[in-house]
Amino acid sequence: MAGLTGGDPSLLRRINSAVVLHALRGAESASLTEITRSTGLSRPTVEGVVDGLMAAALVVEVPAEDGTARRQGRPARRFRFRAEAGHLLGLEIGSHRVAAVVSDLDGRVVGAGQKSVDATASADERLDRLRAAIADVLRRTGVSRDSLRAVGAGSPGIVEADGTVRLGTALPGWTGLQLGDRLRRSFACPVLVENDANAAAVAEHWKGSARDCDDVVFVLAGLSPGAGSLIGGRLHRGFGGAAGEIGALHLLGREVTPETLLSTTDEPLHPLDEQAVTEVFAHARQGDDRAAAAVERYIQRLVHDVAALVLALDPELVVIGGWAAGLDGVLEPLRRELARYCLRSPRVTLSLLGEAAVATGALRLALDHVEEELFAVEGTVTARR
Amino acid sequence: MAGLTGGDPSLLRRINSAVVLHALRGAESASLTEITRSTGLSRPTVEGVVDGLMAAALVVEVPAEDGTARRQGRPARRFRFRAEAGHLLGLEIGSHRVAAVVSDLDGRVVGAGQKSVDATASADERLDRLRAAIADVLRRTGVSRDSLRAVGAGSPGIVEADGTVRLGTALPGWTGLQLGDRLRRSFACPVLVENDANAAAVAEHWKGSARDCDDVVFVLAGLSPGAGSLIGGRLHRGFGGAAGEIGALHLLGREVTPETLLSTTDEPLHPLDEQAVTEVFAHARQGDDRAAAAVERYIQRLVHDVAALVLALDPELVVIGGWAAGLDGVLEPLRRELARYCLRSPRVTLSLLGEAAVATGALRLALDHVEEELFAVEGTVTARR
Repeated sequence: MAGLTGGDPSLLRRINSAVVLHALRGAESASLTEITRSTGLSRPTVEGVVDGLMAAALVVEVPAEDGTARRQGRPARRFRFRAEAGHLLGLEIGSHRVAAVVSDLDGRVVGAGQKSVDATASADERLDRLRAAIADVLRRTGVSRDSLRAVGAGSPGIVEADGTVRLGTALPGWTGLQLGDRLRRSFACPVLVENDANAAAVAEHWKGSARDCDDVVFVLAGLSPGAGSLIGGRLHRGFGGAAGEIGALHLLGREVTPETLLSTTDEPLHPLDEQAVTEVFAHARQGDDRAAAAVERYIQRLVHDVAALVLALDPELVVIGGWAAGLDGVLEPLRRELARYCLRSPRVTLSLLGEAAVATGALRLALDHVEEELFAVEGTVTARR
Repeated sequence: MAGLTGGDPSLLRRINSAVVLHALRGAESASLTEITRSTGLSRPTVEGVVDGLMAAALVVEVPAEDGTARRQGRPARRFRFRAEAGHLLGLEIGSHRVAAVVSDLDGRVVGAGQKSVDATASADERLDRLRAAIADVLRRTGVSRDSLRAVGAGSPGIVEADGTVRLGTALPGWTGLQLGDRLRRSFACPVLVENDANAAAVAEHWKGSARDCDDVVFVLAGLSPGAGSLIGGRLHRGFGGAAGEIGALHLLGREVTPETLLSTTDEPLHPLDEQAVTEVFAHARQGDDRAAAAVERYIQRLVHDVAALVLALDPELVVIGGWAAGLDGVLEPLRRELARYCLRSPRVTLSLLGEAAVATGALRLALDHVEEELFAVEGTVTARR
């Protein structure tokens, strides 16, 4: 950076601010000398930038602690990034519940909450429940709405770049919903909407089972499975945002619906909801033969869905999440069958984040957005889609 | 480039050479003044670089044509890139045939040839046939082996970066074969080995059905289908090079082998080869009910395989190649069923390159390699894996 001269002075200031913020964020605190050294900027430049960042309340001086650095008279002033200068919100919109999680600008979670919602609720009812969950968690954490810098939301369905749900059969009234616009009414900051399985994949990569992997398939296993993929550490959304929407895969060739698949009688299971399925699994554990056969069929379908993703994408790691991840005996058959069908078997593991995955991923996407605004320096940060 | 001063003089010469070659390659011919203008280099630099490139036989002066530019006395000297200064070889290794295609440094094909090979041939026999096909095509085109700058080869199976076949069940003796090393014995230039469906995907993107698409799935439809994918214009090989190896997909859930699938009796079809399948298709066209049912099952399986790829990847375009692409009535059912099962349907089209796809793609990969050597300028060419 030291070589930068001339050009647009406001751009230069922005770049220098980003460089200093980046350096401060990587350390507990730093002195002007340390910042000068790690950034390569001149001392007067660093002083000017730090003054500006303090005026913007993004940086604060750390009070000197007793007994430290007193050897040579006055200790060097130290500064730190004010992660509490702003907050982020991650939202999950599901068929049975809505959830919200709040973090500071370092992505440290300061609060979370959820509310149940009826699977048959209309879009308006569902969004009302979501707003109630958000109000709750903001009140409990004492975070003001003004402090929010970005909001991320994970939703079932194919989501356009502007947050419109192009197709969403999992929730009533969801297809065509301008979800982004509806959410934006509640916030002054940017709102980003992402497919739920995609968000969960991002979350597992950030702080879950996939922290050390850049080529990951996350399977949101439920009644109708969805998947999110990272390729080279980046979300693969597909040409039309529909990558990983494998819900229809099990229909192919066999024409079997989940209602038939999980039935323990000759009649389709109705209503087909998580409670009904949990009962089937409980009966299977108690030795009911027909229930055991239904569970076997369910797991076979999941194996089939996952195998298709693995054969198409060849990931390093498959993470199984969603409520089916909590069922006994999902993992072992998956590993066994993948080894049988795939030319190269990936590692298979369960989600570490569990129910928190979608909201956490949505939070990470909000954080990505803010980081680009605050910290992006042309040439040092790669472009995102 | 005009701003470049100081630094490593040999690197600078290399960069300037690449810039001038790039400019010359984009035009039929160019004068020193035109090169100076299009590259931003100084006149003396351009003169020096052009002299060097002429000494290396990569550039040649174009003889003045009668009647052109005679207005002001002596016409300006014009130069052109010598695409004939080197050649590239693209190879296909298949179960029934081996093929070779030769091009100049602009990728213009100057000759091609193929030889049939028995499906049961050993690896040594198959490589002997390939070497014979190569010798034939080089002799017929008058291209000397010394003139080859790079060789690409497309092969079934999962291929490691060094050209070793990690797994290749389609050809006898193929798994574990050090194909790259074996081919390198015949050439002094670099040899690159790629999965056949991947090579074909690259070919369709280069000069086939996918010229205007960067998100493409190419399906090499045969008895055991394979697929190659481009994401954002780049080959998606997967974490272990196995992406698109969907051969086992049809086994999932239904446990149906191709031998049963295509049988018109209660016995499995044996031997299952292209001739047997072609006969089944012919009988179907003649109104044989059982043959028609077998064809229907085959197409359903292809639909299933393609749908799995589409649901996982969400490409803009699916290109169907391989010998099954030539069968009547493959495309319409595919389009109809994909529209039924996929949340977002891609365009579906047939391969334009047909049987030439694999060798053409292998040729393109060889050309990519040479272009990186000859024309890559740091900062103007993006890194490849």
